[in-house]
Amino acid sequence: MTDYTQILVDKADGIATVTLNRPEKMNAFTGTIMSEIITAMDDLDEDDDVRAVIFTGAGDRAFCAGADLTPEGGGRVFSDPNEVDDLSDERVRDGGGRLTLRLFDSKKPLIAACNGAAVGVGSTMQLPMDIRLASDNARYGFVFARRGIVPEAASSWFLPKLVGISQALEWCYSGRVFDAQEALAGGLVRSVHPQAELMDVARGIAREIADNTSAVSVSMTRAMMWRLPSGDHPMDAHRIDSRAIYRLSRGKDAAEGIASFLEKREPNYPGKVSEDMPDFYPWWDQPEYK
Amino acid sequence: MTDYTQILVDKADGIATVTLNRPEKMNAFTGTIMSEIITAMDDLDEDDDVRAVIFTGAGDRAFCAGADLTPEGGGRVFSDPNEVDDLSDERVRDGGGRLTLRLFDSKKPLIAACNGAAVGVGSTMQLPMDIRLASDNARYGFVFARRGIVPEAASSWFLPKLVGISQALEWCYSGRVFDAQEALAGGLVRSVHPQAELMDVARGIAREIADNTSAVSVSMTRAMMWRLPSGDHPMDAHRIDSRAIYRLSRGKDAAEGIASFLEKREPNYPGKVSEDMPDFYPWWDQPEYK
Amino acid sequence: MTDYTQILVDKADGIATVTLNRPEKMNAFTGTIMSEIITAMDDLDEDDDVRAVIFTGAGDRAFCAGADLTPEGGGRVFSDPNEVDDLSDERVRDGGGRLTLRLFDSKKPLIAACNGAAVGVGSTMQLPMDIRLASDNARYGFVFARRGIVPEAASSWFLPKLVGISQALEWCYSGRVFDAQEALAGGLVRSVHPQAELMDVARGIAREIADNTSAVSVSMTRAMMWRLPSGDHPMDAHRIDSRAIYRLSRGKDAAEGIASFLEKREPNYPGKVSEDMPDFYPWWDQPEYK
Repeated sequence: MTDYTQILVDKADGIATVTLNRPEKMNAFTGTIMSEIITAMDDLDEDDDVRAVIFTGAGDRAFCAGADLTPEGGGRVFSDPNEVDDLSDERVRDGGGRLTLRLFDSKKPLIAACNGAAVGVGSTMQLPMDIRLASDNARYGFVFARRGIVPEAASSWFLPKLVGISQALEWCYSGRVFDAQEALAGGLVRSVHPQAELMDVARGIAREIADNTSAVSVSMTRAMMWRLPSGDHPMDAHRIDSRAIYRLSRGKDAAEGIASFLEKREPNYPGKVSEDMPDFYPWWDQPEYK
Repeated sequence: MTDYTQILVDKADGIATVTLNRPEKMNAFTGTIMSEIITAMDDLDEDDDVRAVIFTGAGDRAFCAGADLTPEGGGRVFSDPNEVDDLSDERVRDGGGRLTLRLFDSKKPLIAACNGAAVGVGSTMQLPMDIRLASDNARYGFVFARRGIVPEAASSWFLPKLVGISQALEWCYSGRVFDAQEALAGGLVRSVHPQAELMDVARGIAREIADNTSAVSVSMTRAMMWRLPSGDHPMDAHRIDSRAIYRLSRGKDAAEGIASFLEKREPNYPGKVSEDMPDFYPWWDQPEYK
Repeated sequence: MTDYTQILVDKADGIATVTLNRPEKMNAFTGTIMSEIITAMDDLDEDDDVRAVIFTGAGDRAFCAGADLTPEGGGRVFSDPNEVDDLSDERVRDGGGRLTLRLFDSKKPLIAACNGAAVGVGSTMQLPMDIRLASDNARYGFVFARRGIVPEAASSWFLPKLVGISQALEWCYSGRVFDAQEALAGGLVRSVHPQAELMDVARGIAREIADNTSAVSVSMTRAMMWRLPSGDHPMDAHRIDSRAIYRLSRGKDAAEGIASFLEKREPNYPGKVSEDMPDFYPWWDQPEYK
């Protein structure tokens, strides 16, 4: 178990829960939180017992109140605080984006259980998560234009994809903080729940995945859906899913899927993400910051 | 008239109806169905009397219950059942994807009239259709993760485009079968109708197209919308529509459009898709499987 | 002040209003309107006092009833009315597209206040605007297939991005004129208002932007959101927003943002779009028609 100082990581029954844990600071974002979540993701991706990951915030007030700009918090999170001239220098990288690009690469489904205020990077870090839930006291704010900066954490890519460009621009232009119902109406979250029920709903969704599906299938699905839809022709998707069906339909999870279906029993897929992904995975080149 | 064995093709008053016709098998998908629909599409694309195509299933239980994995059904549909090592081999191609890529290339509007269960490829084959209608007893399921495989038929490209990536992932992660109302709420279908009214609604939509519009205009619109929106700048769209407006505004359908408008009468466009598409059509290179 | 003949341009309290001003012709689109809006946009982009631009139509009947095909209107708007053979010739360019590509490049937020009929280019010219409002008597029509032509003004790129490909195709296939409620349900407009309140709502949205945000932040946000989301990986967005955060967090608007926040007072950002955009802006190559 890694020693985390600003997050908590719990694993139980196939579900991991990552809790931003600075409740006295409304879980404000720091370089430490960024690094610890990235480390946790590396661990959770490698742990075949983990079938889904839930993110939430400690306390009942906030998911994450944005970047901690105090000296204690370390100020805005860059890869390096020292001034550099070359904007292609790795040290220029935005900390929020380093986090969201890592979440983008996740091998496991990610569920946001937004339990209160989520402002700035508190909102944008949820965008690469697959399913976003809100408690009824949740609030969101893409407040960057009110701080003299711009939407960060690659949210100019994620947010229009999730809510459409008009809603994305309206929220970012005004920088206004808005409530859970507006987030629901605008398509930012899937559903809104009483705060006391939020984690149960999140765990229910994770449970359904863990109990019924092949881990290899789910991990492949995540990679395919996030990485393929933007081309201008479905051929790339056809290339990948043909290969995947060809390999996996001859594999042990497919055999178990058919057997359990015919025997009308619960499935127990033996495949592991760490070992049984098809031979052509990953099929993409990882882009570099430059 | 081609002799089809597992589908029915009807043409009447400018509207073609393709019916998956294995009702005793809940219209389960086979290599024969794949080949017959592709053949039918080639015919319907060439037939200038056909202005729109409706797809439905025979009987009142199912649109298509998924791949027929029984020996009779032929098992999972690949281009060739024999094992090959090279994943770029044409024989690796997924049969569902061969079908959806053919539907993607359709020159005519496609309308899905989903009259019952649509599971696996029964759901994914509807994604390249332009307008999806459901009967109130329709059910959908992207069940691949419960079978140890992955979303096929290029659905990793189509589904996020239609319903957004979060809804697409949630349905594919759980592999759960869901009803028509959930399909409507999630954006998968345009509207839900009593089963007895479903085909009338589908025909009404097709009728409005056939009675009021230029076949060349509609076919060009289909090609432009599916093929252009994913670039990162509207210039490619501007290039194509400038050319199209330039040519077509001097053509016979535009003359008839203006004449019928000024004379306040029903239009009767003389243009044919087989002969009158503008000279730069098709403007794209067809990608190959590799 | 430029002398406009078919539009009105008003500037007050940081908000510009561009009014299509041919009410006796239902503000039908002409080459003059195209040129005058483009000239106005050049002016408004350079005027640092302008924080947002509202577009509306004169009178209470129409926003813009489409292309003025009468001799007086000049017929369909091309770059040049003379026949050319080479479709890559600049003179082939569609006038609607010349306008929407200029709006796409806007440095200021654009708000459509659609006060009545918006047909053909009257609908498509609103698509590159960021926020679309409708009066309760507004009507829209992508009528091109009923005129023997195709969707123009790069709407094959814009419309699916805004409303999804199925809704875009259904509206364009039928060419039907539809009302404000259908536009709302289909995602084409953000909200519908009594005609008498329409401009107040538009001004309220512009007001909130002007009063609370950095002009540089808003202009950067517009460029980032429209130009970045279509790639297949968030890295490009991360590259740009890392650079922007790096530069702007050290700038005068960020200093004012933090100061006003800590002092609990209204901000007064000194940054100007004409002078203070970060050094790497613009970061893209402008594509050419060819």
